[in-house]
Amino acid sequence: MKDKSFLMIPGPTPVPESVLLAMAQHPIGHRSSEFSAILEETYADLKWLFQTKNDVFIYTSSGTGAMEAALSNLINEGDKVLSLVIGNFGNRWAKIATSLGADVEKIEVCAGQAIDADVLKQRLDADTDKEIKIVTLTHNETSTGVTNPLKELIAIIKEHGAVSVVDGVTSIGAIECKMDEWGIDVLISGSQKGFMIPPGLAFLAASEKAFKLHEQCKHPSFYFDWSAYRKSVRANSTPYTPAVNLIVALNEALKTMKKDGLDNILKRHARHAKALRAAIKAIGLQLMVEDDSIASNAITSVYPPAGITVPDIRSTLKKDFDIVVANGQNDLKDKIFRMGTLGFVCDRDILAAVGSLEAALYKLGYKFQLGAGVKAAIENLV
Amino acid sequence: MKDKSFLMIPGPTPVPESVLLAMAQHPIGHRSSEFSAILEETYADLKWLFQTKNDVFIYTSSGTGAMEAALSNLINEGDKVLSLVIGNFGNRWAKIATSLGADVEKIEVCAGQAIDADVLKQRLDADTDKEIKIVTLTHNETSTGVTNPLKELIAIIKEHGAVSVVDGVTSIGAIECKMDEWGIDVLISGSQKGFMIPPGLAFLAASEKAFKLHEQCKHPSFYFDWSAYRKSVRANSTPYTPAVNLIVALNEALKTMKKDGLDNILKRHARHAKALRAAIKAIGLQLMVEDDSIASNAITSVYPPAGITVPDIRSTLKKDFDIVVANGQNDLKDKIFRMGTLGFVCDRDILAAVGSLEAALYKLGYKFQLGAGVKAAIENLV
Repeated sequence: MKDKSFLMIPGPTPVPESVLLAMAQHPIGHRSSEFSAILEETYADLKWLFQTKNDVFIYTSSGTGAMEAALSNLINEGDKVLSLVIGNFGNRWAKIATSLGADVEKIEVCAGQAIDADVLKQRLDADTDKEIKIVTLTHNETSTGVTNPLKELIAIIKEHGAVSVVDGVTSIGAIECKMDEWGIDVLISGSQKGFMIPPGLAFLAASEKAFKLHEQCKHPSFYFDWSAYRKSVRANSTPYTPAVNLIVALNEALKTMKKDGLDNILKRHARHAKALRAAIKAIGLQLMVEDDSIASNAITSVYPPAGITVPDIRSTLKKDFDIVVANGQNDLKDKIFRMGTLGFVCDRDILAAVGSLEAALYKLGYKFQLGAGVKAAIENLV
Repeated sequence: MKDKSFLMIPGPTPVPESVLLAMAQHPIGHRSSEFSAILEETYADLKWLFQTKNDVFIYTSSGTGAMEAALSNLINEGDKVLSLVIGNFGNRWAKIATSLGADVEKIEVCAGQAIDADVLKQRLDADTDKEIKIVTLTHNETSTGVTNPLKELIAIIKEHGAVSVVDGVTSIGAIECKMDEWGIDVLISGSQKGFMIPPGLAFLAASEKAFKLHEQCKHPSFYFDWSAYRKSVRANSTPYTPAVNLIVALNEALKTMKKDGLDNILKRHARHAKALRAAIKAIGLQLMVEDDSIASNAITSVYPPAGITVPDIRSTLKKDFDIVVANGQNDLKDKIFRMGTLGFVCDRDILAAVGSLEAALYKLGYKFQLGAGVKAAIENLV
């Protein structure tokens, strides 16, 4: 039905109408005092959301741009980088590091698993010469729906002394991530996720320790240069013309989020994912991530039942119920479907999604207790 | 007056309401068939606007991002680059090339001047060993309002054999720029200029010759990688999550532009700039670029009259007449003000701007024949 589409992919995520309307205003000059005042508020609110005292840079780019911004400001050719890979986005860190000429070693696990803290500790303990300069990792792996035990992993990296570089694209604003308290060195995110605005902006915060390594970087990216961005942030400005309308939208979204309260937002995400997972199980489908302790509060990956394909489920959900869910990526294509419960999602949306999933499966001939999913969801929501 | 602000800066430029409303729609999935269809149209329309058969990449970035995208896909450490510098943006090419480890030589002229074709020819003729791999240049220099004789300069570079890399940020869609016919190798632009959409997107097209040099590039940027973008464009997709809403806006804006016709759009820009320049002279102010053959059709730089400051003119125009004009940049700050006639501007806007400039100067105590500017503008518009 026209204009009824509801996005349950891991991004873009739904955007509040107040944010869309803020974005639709005529652009204002990016060097005006009016825009500078908006930036001042926005930079402060981003610190709140990142739970950090570090400056948070706003890049006009996708999340991958912020990943490049992280590594291209740190790596010199030949530097040793350890990449903890639990899926496609963890592997993207490794690819970017390699493209910058780093010597990349991976610790890799099967899809659906998280990094084992003991394995990381063993590897870093063995690095007695401190050859490893940087460890890259993913907080919430968007391709599988696994959340790494970030606090624990960061503590191990901190003890070793390497600079930790964390992808928080689908975790910031959805899953607890305390940059300063946990001691994360570089943390990046993207706008079309927990931030409840359309894609086009990405964020990066770096610790003083990371900045020290940056100072040794011979050819930092000009466009993403941390030093230029830090100088601009502190002047409530940007080095180059920013995506003005998206920043106005971000300003509006962050105000809403502050009003809601971070703790409430994180609890809501946890409640929604828990309800969805319970519903999936009650329907009799298999979750990709069965271990609740590493299951994502932002993305839930589900195997289709025998005899029914992922494309069938996706197209029935889309055509008949106006819900868009994501396919698996690369090797997982057509093996799983992924449901996002990320950003601007209310309890009613979860019930609508579970009800629609039940209806789609019913239509596709899957045999199960109709209503079992919604029952389980309600029990976990109320 | 609230909601009455009119931007006459060199970007962001005014955006049509139909484009703002298209942008304000709920984001759609960037991997959906619906979005793929929008990309297919948009990529085709960009080729039309760039007057090229080359693929035109859409980057989520500012124009500076596209500049980095150009050079970081071409330069290896130590490569010789010749930068033709007629202002800040020409110099930005040199800075980015330097940041990538290139050996940069500049041909530089004073603010308000263009590159002399003979000087370029002499330098390139002297390069008998073909050491110069790349020549960077600016089509329309935003900081001064000078348009280089691009066709002529490109012909000289082509004869030498170096790859030409052109900043068309404030020229594409405003000033004639024929990529294929003139033989430009790399051409970049930005969304918040002649494209009539807000900032956040940048564009790049590269010739086969440029792609051959790209193939020798050891560490191309991952985020901006031409090869990844070319593959995606040809599949009506993007390598990473694009700024979906801005692309929907772009699609709408390009449809409007095609309907208007490129020739009519370019003529309108020429007529507006000519009328504005005539008005400025009739009021008795001095233009920075007195030579009509290199004066920009997109940006007009003006010296304030004796005894009246640039900040006074800018703030009076803004406060009393809701018109935003730009200050000079760097060394030119408070020396000139810059008026953009770029993108979504109609004849009435020119009369409003000239009338308001007259009124502001009158209020600030400048003595001149009231109405002389508007008279000259009308004579050039009608």
